[in-house]
Amino acid sequence: MPPPAGFRVEKDLLGEARIPVEALWGVHTSRAAQNFPISGEPVGAFPDFIRAFVTVKQAAARTNRALGYLDHKRAALIEEACLALLKSDDYRNDFIVDAMQGGAGTSTNMNVNEVIANVALGLAGKKPGDYRVVHPNDHVNMAQSTNDVYPTALRLGVLAATVPLLAALEDLACAFKTKADEFASILKVGRTQLRDAVPMTLGQEFRTFQHAVETEIRHIRDQSESFLTVNLGGTAIGTGLNTDPRYAETVVQELGRLTGLAVVEASDRIEATSDVGVFVQFSAVLKRLALKLSKISSDLRLLSSGPRAGIGEIMLPAVQAGSSIMPGKVNPVIPEAVNQVAYLVAGYDVTVSMCADGGQFQLNPFEPMIGYCLFSSLKTLTAAVTLLTTKCVSGIAADPERCRYLFERNIGIVTALVPVLGYDACSQIARRALAENRTVSELVLEEKLLSENELAGLLRPEFLTQPNVGRVTAAVM
Amino acid sequence: MPPPAGFRVEKDLLGEARIPVEALWGVHTSRAAQNFPISGEPVGAFPDFIRAFVTVKQAAARTNRALGYLDHKRAALIEEACLALLKSDDYRNDFIVDAMQGGAGTSTNMNVNEVIANVALGLAGKKPGDYRVVHPNDHVNMAQSTNDVYPTALRLGVLAATVPLLAALEDLACAFKTKADEFASILKVGRTQLRDAVPMTLGQEFRTFQHAVETEIRHIRDQSESFLTVNLGGTAIGTGLNTDPRYAETVVQELGRLTGLAVVEASDRIEATSDVGVFVQFSAVLKRLALKLSKISSDLRLLSSGPRAGIGEIMLPAVQAGSSIMPGKVNPVIPEAVNQVAYLVAGYDVTVSMCADGGQFQLNPFEPMIGYCLFSSLKTLTAAVTLLTTKCVSGIAADPERCRYLFERNIGIVTALVPVLGYDACSQIARRALAENRTVSELVLEEKLLSENELAGLLRPEFLTQPNVGRVTAAVM
Amino acid sequence: MPPPAGFRVEKDLLGEARIPVEALWGVHTSRAAQNFPISGEPVGAFPDFIRAFVTVKQAAARTNRALGYLDHKRAALIEEACLALLKSDDYRNDFIVDAMQGGAGTSTNMNVNEVIANVALGLAGKKPGDYRVVHPNDHVNMAQSTNDVYPTALRLGVLAATVPLLAALEDLACAFKTKADEFASILKVGRTQLRDAVPMTLGQEFRTFQHAVETEIRHIRDQSESFLTVNLGGTAIGTGLNTDPRYAETVVQELGRLTGLAVVEASDRIEATSDVGVFVQFSAVLKRLALKLSKISSDLRLLSSGPRAGIGEIMLPAVQAGSSIMPGKVNPVIPEAVNQVAYLVAGYDVTVSMCADGGQFQLNPFEPMIGYCLFSSLKTLTAAVTLLTTKCVSGIAADPERCRYLFERNIGIVTALVPVLGYDACSQIARRALAENRTVSELVLEEKLLSENELAGLLRPEFLTQPNVGRVTAAVM
Amino acid sequence: MPPPAGFRVEKDLLGEARIPVEALWGVHTSRAAQNFPISGEPVGAFPDFIRAFVTVKQAAARTNRALGYLDHKRAALIEEACLALLKSDDYRNDFIVDAMQGGAGTSTNMNVNEVIANVALGLAGKKPGDYRVVHPNDHVNMAQSTNDVYPTALRLGVLAATVPLLAALEDLACAFKTKADEFASILKVGRTQLRDAVPMTLGQEFRTFQHAVETEIRHIRDQSESFLTVNLGGTAIGTGLNTDPRYAETVVQELGRLTGLAVVEASDRIEATSDVGVFVQFSAVLKRLALKLSKISSDLRLLSSGPRAGIGEIMLPAVQAGSSIMPGKVNPVIPEAVNQVAYLVAGYDVTVSMCADGGQFQLNPFEPMIGYCLFSSLKTLTAAVTLLTTKCVSGIAADPERCRYLFERNIGIVTALVPVLGYDACSQIARRALAENRTVSELVLEEKLLSENELAGLLRPEFLTQPNVGRVTAAVM
Repeated sequence: MPPPAGFRVEKDLLGEARIPVEALWGVHTSRAAQNFPISGEPVGAFPDFIRAFVTVKQAAARTNRALGYLDHKRAALIEEACLALLKSDDYRNDFIVDAMQGGAGTSTNMNVNEVIANVALGLAGKKPGDYRVVHPNDHVNMAQSTNDVYPTALRLGVLAATVPLLAALEDLACAFKTKADEFASILKVGRTQLRDAVPMTLGQEFRTFQHAVETEIRHIRDQSESFLTVNLGGTAIGTGLNTDPRYAETVVQELGRLTGLAVVEASDRIEATSDVGVFVQFSAVLKRLALKLSKISSDLRLLSSGPRAGIGEIMLPAVQAGSSIMPGKVNPVIPEAVNQVAYLVAGYDVTVSMCADGGQFQLNPFEPMIGYCLFSSLKTLTAAVTLLTTKCVSGIAADPERCRYLFERNIGIVTALVPVLGYDACSQIARRALAENRTVSELVLEEKLLSENELAGLLRPEFLTQPNVGRVTAAVM
Repeated sequence: MPPPAGFRVEKDLLGEARIPVEALWGVHTSRAAQNFPISGEPVGAFPDFIRAFVTVKQAAARTNRALGYLDHKRAALIEEACLALLKSDDYRNDFIVDAMQGGAGTSTNMNVNEVIANVALGLAGKKPGDYRVVHPNDHVNMAQSTNDVYPTALRLGVLAATVPLLAALEDLACAFKTKADEFASILKVGRTQLRDAVPMTLGQEFRTFQHAVETEIRHIRDQSESFLTVNLGGTAIGTGLNTDPRYAETVVQELGRLTGLAVVEASDRIEATSDVGVFVQFSAVLKRLALKLSKISSDLRLLSSGPRAGIGEIMLPAVQAGSSIMPGKVNPVIPEAVNQVAYLVAGYDVTVSMCADGGQFQLNPFEPMIGYCLFSSLKTLTAAVTLLTTKCVSGIAADPERCRYLFERNIGIVTALVPVLGYDACSQIARRALAENRTVSELVLEEKLLSENELAGLLRPEFLTQPNVGRVTAAVM
Repeated sequence: MPPPAGFRVEKDLLGEARIPVEALWGVHTSRAAQNFPISGEPVGAFPDFIRAFVTVKQAAARTNRALGYLDHKRAALIEEACLALLKSDDYRNDFIVDAMQGGAGTSTNMNVNEVIANVALGLAGKKPGDYRVVHPNDHVNMAQSTNDVYPTALRLGVLAATVPLLAALEDLACAFKTKADEFASILKVGRTQLRDAVPMTLGQEFRTFQHAVETEIRHIRDQSESFLTVNLGGTAIGTGLNTDPRYAETVVQELGRLTGLAVVEASDRIEATSDVGVFVQFSAVLKRLALKLSKISSDLRLLSSGPRAGIGEIMLPAVQAGSSIMPGKVNPVIPEAVNQVAYLVAGYDVTVSMCADGGQFQLNPFEPMIGYCLFSSLKTLTAAVTLLTTKCVSGIAADPERCRYLFERNIGIVTALVPVLGYDACSQIARRALAENRTVSELVLEEKLLSENELAGLLRPEFLTQPNVGRVTAAVM
Repeated sequence: MPPPAGFRVEKDLLGEARIPVEALWGVHTSRAAQNFPISGEPVGAFPDFIRAFVTVKQAAARTNRALGYLDHKRAALIEEACLALLKSDDYRNDFIVDAMQGGAGTSTNMNVNEVIANVALGLAGKKPGDYRVVHPNDHVNMAQSTNDVYPTALRLGVLAATVPLLAALEDLACAFKTKADEFASILKVGRTQLRDAVPMTLGQEFRTFQHAVETEIRHIRDQSESFLTVNLGGTAIGTGLNTDPRYAETVVQELGRLTGLAVVEASDRIEATSDVGVFVQFSAVLKRLALKLSKISSDLRLLSSGPRAGIGEIMLPAVQAGSSIMPGKVNPVIPEAVNQVAYLVAGYDVTVSMCADGGQFQLNPFEPMIGYCLFSSLKTLTAAVTLLTTKCVSGIAADPERCRYLFERNIGIVTALVPVLGYDACSQIARRALAENRTVSELVLEEKLLSENELAGLLRPEFLTQPNVGRVTAAVM
């Protein structure tokens, strides 16, 4: 019995299935789409992953041709199909299997195999499903197993998705640098444990934000190098069953050529096939970044707290009205969003850990969820960092008068007089200042412990905010 | 200067903004949509939440009319608009603000306020944006603050999203019950610490799955009652500023009437406004369920492991081909998907915890992410449970011969002879059986410790799989 | 060959072992002590657990005697030994196996069995190790398996360890109540999203702390009831193999009698034997409490921040010098300790989740770590709560002048005028107040929007901090 | 009034306190000991930490003398005291403050300062407490703040505690290597997704364990280099207030000299002072290791499952009796302990994350808990790895007959015939083998698809367990 109009028939080990006649995916994709209606997010929503996957297929096709296992015509069709997929966004909707799936990624692999095969068929003037010319398994997937191509594509896909994150972080560091320069001469109270401590400049405070972000950029770059080691060539369990001994080395070289990355072979492909340590590690790298961004965001919220009954040393730009009931209220909504994304990433890190723990024997079947968590983390972090830069940090204004006001009333400044007046005298001044609600300077002058000149000299900003030989040496003598 | 064709102009504290002329949302929604392009998932993707939010608005409109603060015409328009939104799915795309947002949910609240106002305007024959007739803040949001309506809607929305999960769990329990009945007479080895232990039936094993699911159903039902206590009437910080003293009681009664739920007022609305304990608790309830499902899924994978070199006591239905490289391989992809969803839920639980920890003073600004995690958990769990039932459990077949084969070779069965032969003799039999690769029964007969009749009597299935007075009493005498 | 002086010899399936001649533990304990030198914390460090375990043994002995399986003499010796262990702390050092152990708790069970047997032997005038009279397995452990007694003892032990936590929480709630009463008339700024919001009293703020703690107390009490359902009588895998059919019911009744608790039988002992859902749940209960305490502690640190450049509305008692380098600095060290304990408990919750996920078939072998996490959480939480009460909350002082100063400058108070002056006029006042650094009251009077009397009337504290019919009604008319 | 016999009096900002006359700690330690009775584990329980702390003090004393701020006599006394503390374990009980403490580590710093001062006093023939000669703050803590010495000591302490872990891991890798060699020729079934897959040797399987451990060793070594960057010289908030400009460089050089480590100055000490990213990172490094160990342990438990009704390819050494009720049962208790430690470490990682998130402004006050988690993780991991090596892996025996039995019945072996017989023919054989409960070889011969010689050739072990040109090339031709 022929299928109804608009459908073609494909077969797998479960029997026949009807596929929309023009669909670029086939029976395996169709089964998987029905088996995993879970997140509603198809793998096509992670284009970096799909592109990496397609590039792996391209490298395999080249290798299979070079080693003489795939004829030139088929190899050329497959490669042309891969290039078409890499060039255009038109195919995004053809990658329909849910990002959350069982089966260790076989469904994603088959979705990619089928789409490549059918695009190749189109290039050859054939109809979708006519797999004699180019077959998803026999040709596109030749010398491969999900268990080596999936982890390889996941590594390269995550690496690609890291690029825009790094660019966004560069912008953020730059925005903090601009503010650090702008605020360089604004003296303020440093704070430890939420208590007034010793002086610093607002510029120094923003410089730490800049440096923190730059540190994370370096860390991400360093750590992402682990992704360059791939298990391609291992096939089902890493032993390389059914591959030519030259295959692994050749395909990895091809992959390096195609991506421009220094991809290398895993030294033990069996170990590499079941190993997800590098994903656990990178998830933690993202979590470290997230927590740093969260800390900075919390600081920005606290520094801008008020406008009257908080710290109020800086003002964040208003990006929307804060309240339907309180006129004029503006809230730190962008840093709040960053905090939340950070907590999401920290949660995903636990998910990744549990997936890693669940691997058994020669494979970890939970890599799809690991991939979901990493791509979602990268996506939301990139968005959050961009928002933080463009809608918050770049528009931050300082309130120098507020900073100075708090600075002058700060009792912690007495610390700077310890080398001259001694710890005990300073303690008494501190206690009196607190009790009588007066400033340290007033009391020092009133008690004639120092002249106005001496005091001004000791409290010169450049003395207070960095190591200083003059003051310290003087104090000792 | 008039806006270009196709746009209208709305104002907020940042100035003017152009809004598509037919858009049912307004300026606040527009700002938020630009401020939070984070997850790509709009709040409209959580229809239970939107419906709960609209119902809260309806209850408020009724209350404001009843107390004399809102004229009948406006109240009727608002209520009609709410009903329209509740009835139809057509408006889902009008709730466009990202589910991940800063601002403690103000953007979601304003999105709802604006859509209701504009729908009401349409009902009154007015154009969108003509807020003199029905104003998003002054009328739709009257006597409300994001800080009381958002947590209230979140509670009721989560409660609603729990209904399909419970239905799916009922089906799962039922499927396990069917299998428990079907497998009631299949004797098998019980296992502890992955080591052969004492006998049980396969029916008993599936009965525990049924009972485990039923326990979770009860637990979810019990725990979700906490959601019925709401802080409505608290406005900005729970003090009820700008509300009529009768407002809180009345609006909660209205809400109860509209939802059919036993909603009650929080005894301390200030505490309730910043409190997110109930969400922390419910997230843990979902995690407990998730871990139970994960344990069951792991058991199903282990019990069906093989087909030759594993346990192989049961067969899961094949739902797709398992491997592109290994002919005939079928994998337990559905339980694998369930495991992964469970780990996702466990990760979200950490996110919820960190959000809860970050609340400060009179509000927790991270409720939007808490909501995102709960709704995503509920959605993926419901899907996973449904798949587990329909695509796995209901098609499980037992391999009674394999069960019996393993059962008969099981050395642990010697435990059943301890009361008769004593611990020491039994230990010797166990050791010999293991060393000589023979069965306990063979050795007992060979050593003439028991007659064939006696042995058969002692090893009668009903003696082995439940407490039994005869055997034990006999043993003592 | 006889053992060297000071040692006796015991045997197990590995052969002979030398045991110190006076040791109350035996060969199984000795093996375990060598097998698990992991945490350095012996199970004796959790006395509530040991006491619960001993009580379970006592109940079993009584039951076995009542059902006729254990002779009166032995039963009496065992019970007397149990009573001795319950009465005195002298035996704490005899429970030497590490709290972190493999084997699903068998080592703890055997440690308890051996100590009871040897104490009983002492009472009978026998030497340790002379197990013919009272045998650890045959008599003390009769009709039991680790797999039913361990989970039962863990439930009752955790329940017992909850008692001092609840008492500490009662004290904390009481301390907050005292402060709430003391601060009842101090007007202050309420804060949402770290921004000044509408007014409240400091008393109301502390009342929320009191109510939050009281809510947690109720929640803990409610949830700990789940621990009363026990799987005693299930033996190895819950089927009750080798038990008299009357055993389960009788031993649970005995246990209820001995503990005074409403202990009940699990309806499906097989399910109950492998189930750890109740521990997952209780871990989450403790986490919820921990996060609440953490939020309160963070609020206390923020409210007391300064002394000059922070919020400074309250002063925490000084309990130690804060800094070696900054004279006079005092830090909020007690709330900081509470935050840290909260994060520890949240971490343990993840450990418990992973342990729960790892259970397989008829048992969860990771219950010892679950127990470790729960007991450690309970211990550190109880300590932290006690410190928070005695060394922090009970000594908190308010700074009413600072509260009033911030209150009067708060722009958010304009919200209270909205019902009278309208949202737009209020917005203008708010903007001017912020721009010109003036108060709302000044501007309202200057612009003659209200008379001094009217303003004073509207800003009466009792109008600002609760719903008020007069103001709102007036505003509408 | 003089103190009672046996006590001396010391003062701090809270007034006088009685200290046991011979105690090497003083008033600050005493206050802290009373303030933080939380975990019961004193900081002295982490000797690596104390030793690192003392070494930092020694470096500071040398630097202060070199720069002319500390006279030679005092410097010599302090250094001598440090050496005494480093040499002997006798002082462990003098470090009494609880490892869980508020105050950002000030209490630990003061405990160290006070013990060093009093040991120095003893060396000078003075009594404890006579701080005129050597003062804990003025001399021992000179040019330091808790905020720079604590994080520095924590880094170096953790680094030191990593040494025994690495040694234990080397032993474990070695044990796995021995087994990999021993099992090199044992053919067995490889498994993916718990399903029989293609062949491998048991040696290859153990080789992956070896390589996995070796990878972790390299990873830990690489990542621990981050600890070599220290913020020493930053004092209170990183600005270096009250230090000589030469101080930071000099003290770091001294520290490098004393430790033999390539310690370097932080480029931005302000950033470094509040930063805990390196601890977040290292916690994740330990978690990655833990999860790898857990995966291996789970594999060992599964591979040894049985003895009859499981996989049973290997036998773990028996280290204790497994059950009181089941004669002869032996459980995989050592791997179970490793799993549990892994989950503990994963939980601590969440605690560390939450602590990291909670830092504010110029300091993270939660470093003591971070330290607790890292040291506890290191300690339990080191113990677990050692146990795994000595009590499990080194005694593992293979069951070659069981391996071969399962191997021969494995249907997945048909994959090796695909290049010769084609995918379709292989699929049919696979299906028939499963349905008729026969082996692939039997059917291939029966159907005369290959001669016995051909089949034997294709299934030669060296063809099945690695890439092979002959077979593949043949197949294509």
